Amino acid sequence: VRSVSVAVIGTGRAGRVHAENLARMRNVRLAAVCDPLLDEQWVSGVGAAHVSRDADEVFADRAIEAVVIAAPTREHLQLIRRAAAAGKQIFCEKPVAFDPAGVAEAVAAARDYGVMLQIGFNRRFDPTFRRVRERIAAGEIGEPNIVHVVDRDPRPPARAFLEGSGGIFRDLAIHDFDMVRYLTGREVVEVYALGMTLDGSAPGEVDAAFTTLRLDNGALAQITNSRHAVYCYDQRVEVLGSRGSVAAGNVSPSSTVVMSAAGVRRDAPFEVFSERFAQAFAAELHAFVGSVAEGREPEVGGADALAAMRIACAAETSLCERRPVAVADSPLCHPKDDHQKEEHHDHRRQPCAPSI
Amino acid sequence: VRSVSVAVIGTGRAGRVHAENLARMRNVRLAAVCDPLLDEQWVSGVGAAHVSRDADEVFADRAIEAVVIAAPTREHLQLIRRAAAAGKQIFCEKPVAFDPAGVAEAVAAARDYGVMLQIGFNRRFDPTFRRVRERIAAGEIGEPNIVHVVDRDPRPPARAFLEGSGGIFRDLAIHDFDMVRYLTGREVVEVYALGMTLDGSAPGEVDAAFTTLRLDNGALAQITNSRHAVYCYDQRVEVLGSRGSVAAGNVSPSSTVVMSAAGVRRDAPFEVFSERFAQAFAAELHAFVGSVAEGREPEVGGADALAAMRIACAAETSLCERRPVAVADSPLCHPKDDHQKEEHHDHRRQPCAPSI
Amino acid sequence: VRSVSVAVIGTGRAGRVHAENLARMRNVRLAAVCDPLLDEQWVSGVGAAHVSRDADEVFADRAIEAVVIAAPTREHLQLIRRAAAAGKQIFCEKPVAFDPAGVAEAVAAARDYGVMLQIGFNRRFDPTFRRVRERIAAGEIGEPNIVHVVDRDPRPPARAFLEGSGGIFRDLAIHDFDMVRYLTGREVVEVYALGMTLDGSAPGEVDAAFTTLRLDNGALAQITNSRHAVYCYDQRVEVLGSRGSVAAGNVSPSSTVVMSAAGVRRDAPFEVFSERFAQAFAAELHAFVGSVAEGREPEVGGADALAAMRIACAAETSLCERRPVAVADSPLCHPKDDHQKEEHHDHRRQPCAPSI
Amino acid sequence: VRSVSVAVIGTGRAGRVHAENLARMRNVRLAAVCDPLLDEQWVSGVGAAHVSRDADEVFADRAIEAVVIAAPTREHLQLIRRAAAAGKQIFCEKPVAFDPAGVAEAVAAARDYGVMLQIGFNRRFDPTFRRVRERIAAGEIGEPNIVHVVDRDPRPPARAFLEGSGGIFRDLAIHDFDMVRYLTGREVVEVYALGMTLDGSAPGEVDAAFTTLRLDNGALAQITNSRHAVYCYDQRVEVLGSRGSVAAGNVSPSSTVVMSAAGVRRDAPFEVFSERFAQAFAAELHAFVGSVAEGREPEVGGADALAAMRIACAAETSLCERRPVAVADSPLCHPKDDHQKEEHHDHRRQPCAPSI
Repeated sequence: VRSVSVAVIGTGRAGRVHAENLARMRNVRLAAVCDPLLDEQWVSGVGAAHVSRDADEVFADRAIEAVVIAAPTREHLQLIRRAAAAGKQIFCEKPVAFDPAGVAEAVAAARDYGVMLQIGFNRRFDPTFRRVRERIAAGEIGEPNIVHVVDRDPRPPARAFLEGSGGIFRDLAIHDFDMVRYLTGREVVEVYALGMTLDGSAPGEVDAAFTTLRLDNGALAQITNSRHAVYCYDQRVEVLGSRGSVAAGNVSPSSTVVMSAAGVRRDAPFEVFSERFAQAFAAELHAFVGSVAEGREPEVGGADALAAMRIACAAETSLCERRPVAVADSPLCHPKDDHQKEEHHDHRRQPCAPSI
Repeated sequence: VRSVSVAVIGTGRAGRVHAENLARMRNVRLAAVCDPLLDEQWVSGVGAAHVSRDADEVFADRAIEAVVIAAPTREHLQLIRRAAAAGKQIFCEKPVAFDPAGVAEAVAAARDYGVMLQIGFNRRFDPTFRRVRERIAAGEIGEPNIVHVVDRDPRPPARAFLEGSGGIFRDLAIHDFDMVRYLTGREVVEVYALGMTLDGSAPGEVDAAFTTLRLDNGALAQITNSRHAVYCYDQRVEVLGSRGSVAAGNVSPSSTVVMSAAGVRRDAPFEVFSERFAQAFAAELHAFVGSVAEGREPEVGGADALAAMRIACAAETSLCERRPVAVADSPLCHPKDDHQKEEHHDHRRQPCAPSI
Repeated sequence: VRSVSVAVIGTGRAGRVHAENLARMRNVRLAAVCDPLLDEQWVSGVGAAHVSRDADEVFADRAIEAVVIAAPTREHLQLIRRAAAAGKQIFCEKPVAFDPAGVAEAVAAARDYGVMLQIGFNRRFDPTFRRVRERIAAGEIGEPNIVHVVDRDPRPPARAFLEGSGGIFRDLAIHDFDMVRYLTGREVVEVYALGMTLDGSAPGEVDAAFTTLRLDNGALAQITNSRHAVYCYDQRVEVLGSRGSVAAGNVSPSSTVVMSAAGVRRDAPFEVFSERFAQAFAAELHAFVGSVAEGREPEVGGADALAAMRIACAAETSLCERRPVAVADSPLCHPKDDHQKEEHHDHRRQPCAPSI
Repeated sequence: VRSVSVAVIGTGRAGRVHAENLARMRNVRLAAVCDPLLDEQWVSGVGAAHVSRDADEVFADRAIEAVVIAAPTREHLQLIRRAAAAGKQIFCEKPVAFDPAGVAEAVAAARDYGVMLQIGFNRRFDPTFRRVRERIAAGEIGEPNIVHVVDRDPRPPARAFLEGSGGIFRDLAIHDFDMVRYLTGREVVEVYALGMTLDGSAPGEVDAAFTTLRLDNGALAQITNSRHAVYCYDQRVEVLGSRGSVAAGNVSPSSTVVMSAAGVRRDAPFEVFSERFAQAFAAELHAFVGSVAEGREPEVGGADALAAMRIACAAETSLCERRPVAVADSPLCHPKDDHQKEEHHDHRRQPCAPSI
């Protein structure tokens, strides 16, 4: 395959992982890393051809064919607009924006300028979840009708990140809304969400949630999220069908087992997202670069981002209004006008859940 | 401990298990088995002192101190009334009745005649689930705030049983409503239920359900039920707390693992309820006989039966009305008058769920 | 099946398990328990028809059809002789005697008086090990050629028991010699054994051993024994064949898993032999009583006892002489004359192993 | 760390893995790949600065600081001599030579020319086995006294490789001899080996073996090898100590579990050595390059190669002479004179084992 020149914009947690993966890929030139607040020590090790504090330098560089956008979510939309206008192929971290209107705008920009837009739903590229989908597709469980997704962080991200995250549905559960669609190939029609605030230091912020989804064929899905799963980074799926079930459990760094009078102890599962999903992060960029090199459609694109965001908005509505919400009927779920977007901001902090 | 003379009324699936367990207990005299339709071959093997087709013979026998009621659910209430009036100590299978009014009447009868009423929530006596509760009580996971219960049958019971079962919430999920109360020590305040009809041969009959419970301290519970889990009799619980999680997985008849070029195969979990819960069935009767012998309160009694039934009614209401239902507000959840009970009958078949 | 009247002689650890199992069997009359040193409290609970301190009372009782011999090993041979002479059907705990000569004598006595002799190789009746044999017999792993047996006690038995045990090969590993024969259907031709003395308080007593067996078809088996497996009662087998492998892991009282920041903890496997092998103990007596009632051959008889004892003697010779020993050539392995038996006594304490 | 210029000599199975890993390391320049029979397609993808068919070109290139020797075993010794004479730092695949004399000569060459010699005992760098050693070193199991190592290939290597491999002890079990030393920190004093020939197409070639080792503190180790473990690439260790045990099981590509009426199926463990030990292969070269860059001693060096080879020779002697062999007394285990080495050649095909 031909070589592709890529820049990474944003060098926070995900951005660094992407840059390091690109630097290890044989058919990639890591043309630039770009961030207004660069960590000099990290930069010196990653081996990018250029270093920049200004994304315009990246967009102006004709040798750069593609960009990986991993800046804070609030920057995504304008970066996508500018990158698309500059003709760059785009990989953007999730969520693309805070509401369906923003996602739709990003999708339109990419379409209008004829560039690709791949979304950072990395779990689709995890070998274990991918294996689950393959087994379903191979008919091993018959028709899937019940889906469980567990997605829990061992501890919350930094307060600054949290405040710009858009809340648990847009930031965390959005992976799981996409996973349900990925595993079943079905659309979500109705959402019911319940939340809890486990961390007293962030009153009003939902940091654990149960979301129940009804799919367009009558199948049901349950998603469980938490930012306080102190015991591990808990990442599981289970799908039941008419002829069997398929499940993917947690993954541990080693298969070591210690037995003593105190009991049987295994290594805890991976705790850090970049370790648990190391292969997934590498594989999604490999797919992105491959799509760029060969002019293919991305494996996961703007339509997937929009569908997941609409579910996230319906979940938030459900949480606040304490009722099941049809995705098609949720006022928040449709990109309409600016007023709509303003209204959404009132909900961003989800002041609806009780403390426990 | 002193010996106790016990009769078993009803010799269907559960009744036979109870009679056989009583016959093996050293301090028990299996005084009688009673069923209008006795299976002669089974009766000849079980070794009961007397055999009867008429429960009145049992109630009239002064040597019989206690009865195990395992007749069809529709018979429970009148049998409890007559047994209580005859001064018998009572163990009754779940559900005690089809609605809170019926359960409340049974509880009142036992109280009025001063006899014990133990309920057949056998899973409280399963060593694995009991261990889960012990670990929670010992503080190993901190404050419990999320509960998952999986309760699925590999295939539906016989059509005749199904039609008299009261539906999936009263017959199957009622175990799980009790389990949530057992594990957390909390009461349920709100219920949201979704259902599916997987089996086309029983249109309108819900045979799979997701139920989400909100507890009185803000904690959440999810229950997953199915009558078509073809892969196994799937019985799991998982409780997450502020400091950790505790889970009980399925139990297999043997620890055998076969590896070949075709992969790694383990023995499937138990498929038959009387095998998976063999220890639980024995232990609940052991506890019942002990309570009778020593004049103690039962470990699980009428108040537990009533609480679980009120949750079941709220779940049915939620399913039909497609909204979360407060247990305290559900019209079906409160025993009031006969009209109420009639109304309930309209809901018994749960004609609310889509086919999939 | 018709009812059988059985007496238990010897009420130590195994004898009590046997008596309690017989008392629960419907077609058995527990006619007597017999021990010179009876524990009155235990006796009062077990519900035997008679209690005796003198085995002659048992042998003289014409109503007693069968005896379970669970006295100390040094008493086995004379009890078998007297029981056979009295025409009783015999179940005898392992080892039958301390050397092949003794076992051969017992076998001859049973044969001469025309009574059955079943041996207490209970593990043949464990559901898990039985499942392993079934899978091998069904051809699932092809031709078996490698066998691993792990058999370790969490702690040594009482000193008094240990001194009369005949050493680790006759007392503990004899189960495993039988297991290799049971699983493969092959005879052992050569033995190499290594030992360790882990417990400094019993110098010269081997309390851990590795034994390698060569079978008559060239297949190999490894047995690992210890009396100091502090972490659990470690009971595993694994058989590899030309097309796959089958393994049986340890068995735990519950499937509970606790996760916390400290890691993933499972319940330890059973620690007490009578709990781990509860089903096996019941099943072997069930089979014995069935064989008595129906006049069938025992599932495991005197020839098995003799074969296992010859391997044990070859293992002891190998340990002391530090060389592989052919079972056919080992001077200790053939019952010949009294001198031979005396010689054996010099080896009983196995003063051959280094301390560690 | 400073950059290191490395050449790979030999591009068979292991050599390719090494070259690809070096190409991905940031502080490494893959200066050359060298093989008389280069695979042009593979070479074009790996991205080496130079390509050569003659190792002398590599040795003559002053810009090359270090070499990875992965040529056939029979070439190792002369390549090490020439590399050392040229002042190159050396990483050499196992086994270094076919006998202790050859290994000792290689060690002497490296010492005389003052260059490093790291040995390709890659399993020391596997995260799982490393974790086992850490737990032992941390005292979690007390004093280790029993070691089990399972090392089985799913199928034999190509006939050509097999014929030049030196037999199962030098080629396969040598990893395990090293593993026992690595995990316990002890030396092996006595060896007893048994073998089987499972593959009828290679009569006289041992392709499965049991080896029992006695360590210098009285501890015991068992090693199980096979070239025909059709069910998986079976790589396990288990160490028991005075206070507990630690085990490392097989590793699977995914945690997926499928349940159906046919049972419970997990993904089989990795089947290909380069996948199972992908991290280990990368880590050992990372350590090598780090040692070169910083002038440190290698983590595993010539003394380890010599110790493992002496155990392998004692195992071969034991197999042929059917007796336990002291490592110190084995004629094959000591590098003495050329006659000795000739004698060894008679044993290389191990014509001692029965077919099964």
